[in-house]
Amino acid sequence: MSVKIFCGQMDVVPGRPDLNFNMMRLLAAAAREEGADILVLPELCLPGYLIGDVWEQQSFIDDCLYYTRQLAAEARGLVLIFGSVAQEKNKRHEDGRPRKYNAAFVCQDGRLLQGHLGRNFFIKTCLPNYREFDDARHFYSLQKLCAEEESSVEDTLQPLRLKIKGEEVRIGLLLCEDGWTENYHLNVPRLLAQHGAQLLINLSASPYSLGKNRKRHRLFGAQAEECGVPLVYVNNVGSQNNGKDIFTYDGCTSAYAADGTLKASAPMYAATVLRLDWEPAARFIDSPQGITPPPRETEAIFQALQYGSSLFLKQCGIKKMTVGLSGGIDSAVAAALYCHILGSENVLLLNLPSMYNSELTRSLAAEVAENLGANYAVLPIGESFSHTVKQLKETEICDLSCGKTFHLEPAPLVLENIQARDRGARLIAGAAAAFGGAFSCNSNKAEISVGYATFYGDICGALAVLGDIWKHQVYALGRCLNEKVYGKEVIPEQIFTIRPSAELSSAQTVGTGGDPLIYPYHDHLLQAFVENWHKSTPLEIARLYAKGAEALAEELKCDPQVIKEIFDGPAAFFADLERWWKLFSGFAVAKRIQAPPIVAISKRAFGYDHREAQLTPYFSREYLALKEKLLGR
Amino acid sequence: MSVKIFCGQMDVVPGRPDLNFNMMRLLAAAAREEGADILVLPELCLPGYLIGDVWEQQSFIDDCLYYTRQLAAEARGLVLIFGSVAQEKNKRHEDGRPRKYNAAFVCQDGRLLQGHLGRNFFIKTCLPNYREFDDARHFYSLQKLCAEEESSVEDTLQPLRLKIKGEEVRIGLLLCEDGWTENYHLNVPRLLAQHGAQLLINLSASPYSLGKNRKRHRLFGAQAEECGVPLVYVNNVGSQNNGKDIFTYDGCTSAYAADGTLKASAPMYAATVLRLDWEPAARFIDSPQGITPPPRETEAIFQALQYGSSLFLKQCGIKKMTVGLSGGIDSAVAAALYCHILGSENVLLLNLPSMYNSELTRSLAAEVAENLGANYAVLPIGESFSHTVKQLKETEICDLSCGKTFHLEPAPLVLENIQARDRGARLIAGAAAAFGGAFSCNSNKAEISVGYATFYGDICGALAVLGDIWKHQVYALGRCLNEKVYGKEVIPEQIFTIRPSAELSSAQTVGTGGDPLIYPYHDHLLQAFVENWHKSTPLEIARLYAKGAEALAEELKCDPQVIKEIFDGPAAFFADLERWWKLFSGFAVAKRIQAPPIVAISKRAFGYDHREAQLTPYFSREYLALKEKLLGR
Repeated sequence: MSVKIFCGQMDVVPGRPDLNFNMMRLLAAAAREEGADILVLPELCLPGYLIGDVWEQQSFIDDCLYYTRQLAAEARGLVLIFGSVAQEKNKRHEDGRPRKYNAAFVCQDGRLLQGHLGRNFFIKTCLPNYREFDDARHFYSLQKLCAEEESSVEDTLQPLRLKIKGEEVRIGLLLCEDGWTENYHLNVPRLLAQHGAQLLINLSASPYSLGKNRKRHRLFGAQAEECGVPLVYVNNVGSQNNGKDIFTYDGCTSAYAADGTLKASAPMYAATVLRLDWEPAARFIDSPQGITPPPRETEAIFQALQYGSSLFLKQCGIKKMTVGLSGGIDSAVAAALYCHILGSENVLLLNLPSMYNSELTRSLAAEVAENLGANYAVLPIGESFSHTVKQLKETEICDLSCGKTFHLEPAPLVLENIQARDRGARLIAGAAAAFGGAFSCNSNKAEISVGYATFYGDICGALAVLGDIWKHQVYALGRCLNEKVYGKEVIPEQIFTIRPSAELSSAQTVGTGGDPLIYPYHDHLLQAFVENWHKSTPLEIARLYAKGAEALAEELKCDPQVIKEIFDGPAAFFADLERWWKLFSGFAVAKRIQAPPIVAISKRAFGYDHREAQLTPYFSREYLALKEKLLGR
Repeated sequence: MSVKIFCGQMDVVPGRPDLNFNMMRLLAAAAREEGADILVLPELCLPGYLIGDVWEQQSFIDDCLYYTRQLAAEARGLVLIFGSVAQEKNKRHEDGRPRKYNAAFVCQDGRLLQGHLGRNFFIKTCLPNYREFDDARHFYSLQKLCAEEESSVEDTLQPLRLKIKGEEVRIGLLLCEDGWTENYHLNVPRLLAQHGAQLLINLSASPYSLGKNRKRHRLFGAQAEECGVPLVYVNNVGSQNNGKDIFTYDGCTSAYAADGTLKASAPMYAATVLRLDWEPAARFIDSPQGITPPPRETEAIFQALQYGSSLFLKQCGIKKMTVGLSGGIDSAVAAALYCHILGSENVLLLNLPSMYNSELTRSLAAEVAENLGANYAVLPIGESFSHTVKQLKETEICDLSCGKTFHLEPAPLVLENIQARDRGARLIAGAAAAFGGAFSCNSNKAEISVGYATFYGDICGALAVLGDIWKHQVYALGRCLNEKVYGKEVIPEQIFTIRPSAELSSAQTVGTGGDPLIYPYHDHLLQAFVENWHKSTPLEIARLYAKGAEALAEELKCDPQVIKEIFDGPAAFFADLERWWKLFSGFAVAKRIQAPPIVAISKRAFGYDHREAQLTPYFSREYLALKEKLLGR
């Protein structure tokens, strides 16, 4: 017998069960029409996943339950399997609220089939609580339920038994994390296979991050092979956010044969259906659709940023974007991205020069605008800057405790920040509001890491589209925009070669000085602080340095020559390390707390993936000892 | 036998095991000197609790483990019980990192005593994952460990057996949530009592929120009575934050007799030691220190805001504060608070009038400054505002796709926001930087709820000290400042009686118009959206309204007359409800994502206590049906 399985890689709208219900219904009708035996839809595809504490709104849950009943009642002529929230109002979650489960529902012949422990749904066993995931906050796991009801989880994990064309087939249902159990004491896929599953289906809501698909193919391939049955992975597309972080869901719905081979994968970011032919007796699975080859890293970054930001802007109702254009790489890349996403006619590019901006960068900005064919204006900040400084310096301040008066004396750094805020909060914000829509935050991840940005100056806007990519990735993205997206040099070559500079003082003008971050080293150092799964701190970095520049460079994946060039000895190395660590774990946190949302694409994004408290920077005992030793004290 | 138990209500510095270690050592030495038999210190008092993902830094954990060993080695002459992190490097947490436990350590005679399942520590059984708590993210629970090791949790929960003066005593150790198990299927205190505990000690790190102490006295009193043994609650003081929310730890270390009576409680927010005399055989506990009576609500709010903000500013190194002073209640209260916290000499008050500011509010602002004896200046925004509008209107924008030019035409709302940003981001931010220190965000919780604030205008600054209190609480706090804190009318009476207004247009000037929020109703409506444990949505509100204004007022705890006055019928009621719900669950979320940290004191604070995604506002099916019915459609 051959079973036709349709996998609906649907575009889930978080927080909108009404819209998702309509889509699920359409997919079910179309699948039935095309002769599908089973339609599988992703985890939590009815409510959405990242909806914050909307999970606590009973009226929202009630709608999800209502639509689930509707879907079950309408499910005829095919089996519908989908993920949603289940609730038992007579039981408590550990927070005292009515208990909810992250569940899979199976509908056949107008009703819900039996699931775990007498319920009419299957319960997620392993709940992730890392990165952006807070499953334990909202959901009760099968493990907890089994403990409470004194059942064995091992015995409870039985495959779904379905009658298809009169024959029984056995499907092991997994919900996302249930398939990633290398660190759990339960191996859910193996248990399901041991209990007779002829196929594993993993319903997921798994956000994209760089390199994740490669890892998943490896892991799920090995899982299928170990279990000796085919495995189907069904993931949604769309964009969901947790406030600070906008995640893209790339779909990449896939099927793996019983020997672990990848047999089919749907295109990334496309709302589509992957059609599979499964022969239970032969443990065979295949698809006429074949494998969509994965993009290379920079194209993957481009796709994710383009997809995530366009969906986010659409959801927010933002159709126009204003971008401050300095003549540097970050703003040029942001401008090119937004022109591609929204159309050049909907983008306003503003060059906002002061006396410190070089002719070179001003003309490069104009060139970018010209190449993109966007709306463009030059709005100088000189007059307003002088007025502000004059007002601050000349206004008498009265100490009312004694009647004495005094004046403020803004220091050089204060003057730099006044310029940045004059650009961001006065002109760009004002022009963006008048133009309609919002404005762009052009900060990259290296700047955000150390707070190399001015509060309400450049770290502001509706979205930091480059906020999760490092400076070297910004350059690569710029190349990709020129070569692959536009097919012409919209970003002039010189922008790739000038030394990055903020141009906020005479010491910072292009040609005379540049950013304090030396990106070929600091990009990688900062990446180790935030993205390493086993977080690097000054101790780990200093230990590598003690072994030599090559050892450090190998770990950081940078050029050892750069390390040798910038540090003439341990004193310089430690001064640099402590300078950035203090910023990274100190004042930069304050800036990130108030920073715009970012499109998350890395293994660890700032915001609500990498979670932070404002603390005082800490140096460990061993670090301090090693430093003393290396400094020869 | 009488056992002297000292409870160290210590000031925990989050993320600084080095500093906490020094304090713990001092407390142990002093307790030994004073003849204590046992010194109990709070949960996670060595690392701190709210430290974000610093839990993932191995070098940080290693320091905690080192200091724990040191404390154990030095523990002689008394038993030291304290909370810290434990780690088993050879085991994995579910995220793949080396496994950590939220644990209690017991040190006697220079070593750690035996704890749970062969370990030398006791493991927290119940891990909270609600509000600001993410225990499952970082820690492995005793429940999970028992499941993994196939032990029964019930059997594992045995009291600590100590030899004191040659006699064995049995103490049931609880870690915070272990004592709040009404919604767990395990009752940890009861199990410990059943297994022979003669005393329960709860090591906590429990942030303050309004009404929590009353609830805890009730719950722990009942727990002691049910278990038939005395109960000791040890909590830390200090301030810890999760980035968005600054929590105060009030201590309030308490002892309950075996009949449930409160016998002793330490003063709130004081780093102090509560000394107890315990007679195990007689199940008797008492203290020479007695009970510190709890403050009333407004005084409690004042204490929490004052304590939390002063510790936070100190940690950030902020010694001076600049406050924009409009002549309204919020800024007057913020100014009075900061003058009290930092000293008037360290506060710069700025009145920033435009043509729309009334003589009345301008003179009220001057009066507040005079009363407080702070530094004061008037910085008009008129000239800069005109310049910005002129620059935006007159600058030619070129559509580079065709060469055509056009001009921007800022709408009235755009002009209002330009004024707000001119105040906040241009003058206040600039003056604050020149004055030294930071500036205040004066937004209250009602404004933050609906985003009645301008991005980078008034919702900016280092700290929103009033961000978790409603408008009526701001008024009450103003009264409290006059009457209790200053003992004179620093905030003039008229500020309490004028209608709140933003004064950003001729329609909003005091006397001609005011805020769109009618606080005596909207304060309470918005509170129900965010603070109700079972969240209110438009459905719950409309259901109450359907029963009548009295029913709605009773639930919201407001005056029914107000509801009757502002709504002349269901159409007005629904228009108002949807207006604010859409803002609350829509654009206001975007503003909160970029809002400053707040001092959290309520049952639910915006930020990282009430977690939010940016979504499109949702109205449930039942709500829409009820609305149609009530509107007679």
